[in-house]
Amino acid sequence: MPGEGIVQNPIEAAMMAGDVLSELCPSRTILRQVTTRWSVLCLIVLDRGEMRFSDLRRTIGGVSERMLSKTLQDLAGHGLVHRESFPVVPPHVVYSLTPLGRDMADEVGRLTGWIERNIDRFPAEAAA
Amino acid sequence: MPGEGIVQNPIEAAMMAGDVLSELCPSRTILRQVTTRWSVLCLIVLDRGEMRFSDLRRTIGGVSERMLSKTLQDLAGHGLVHRESFPVVPPHVVYSLTPLGRDMADEVGRLTGWIERNIDRFPAEAAA
Repeated sequence: MPGEGIVQNPIEAAMMAGDVLSELCPSRTILRQVTTRWSVLCLIVLDRGEMRFSDLRRTIGGVSERMLSKTLQDLAGHGLVHRESFPVVPPHVVYSLTPLGRDMADEVGRLTGWIERNIDRFPAEAAA
Repeated sequence: MPGEGIVQNPIEAAMMAGDVLSELCPSRTILRQVTTRWSVLCLIVLDRGEMRFSDLRRTIGGVSERMLSKTLQDLAGHGLVHRESFPVVPPHVVYSLTPLGRDMADEVGRLTGWIERNIDRFPAEAAA
C-alpha cells in the first residue's frame, strides 16, 4: 500500500504465511480447534444469519447443550463468532459471525457441500 | 445418461444429496471422521504424491506412529487412501490417494491454504 512503509515481496509473504505441517505453527492450532465437527456445523448454520442458542441447537442435529455452548465459546475466542446479550427477562443471547467467521464459513461450507454432493462415492460401510 | 433408465430431476438429486446438519446422515459420519487434524494433514501431504509411512511421519510434524497408523487405516476404510505393500525385506509399504481421496484433498487443501494465508487475522492468544 502506498505510504505504508512495509513492502512485502513474495518471499517475505510466503515466510509470513502459516504452515499447517509444522507442529508449532499457529495455523496448526486453528486447524485443530476449528475443524471439529461442531465448529464446522456452527459456522455453516450461522452463515445463514444470526441465531439464538436454542435455534442453533434445534438446527444442528445431535449437539448437546454443553457441546454447543463450549463450541460457541471457542469460536468466539478465535474471533469467528460474536455473542450479543440483551438484558431482558428471560435472557436473550444472539450469535452471529464476525467478518473473519464469514470468510471461514465460506471455506468450510465448500467442504461440507462437497461431502454432501459426493456422499454416494464413499464406501457404504464407512459412512454407516 | 441415455439408456440408463434412472432420470434424476433437480428435486430428486437434492433429496439424494447428504445433509450434514442431520445427525443420522452418512455425510455427518464422513465429516466427523475425515476432518480430524491428522486426516486433513495426511490428505494434503499425499496429494503431492505416494509416500512411505516413515516419510509421511517425518513430513507431518508432531504425529505419533500410532496416530498416523490409525489415521491411514481410517482413510483407507473410507476409500480415500490406497495402501500397497511390497513383499520385500524390510517390508515396504506405500500409501497413495484414490481418485476420491484426490478430490477430497483438493477441498481440504483449499481450507488449510486459507487458514495459512489468513493466520494473522486470528487473535494471537487463540492461535498460541
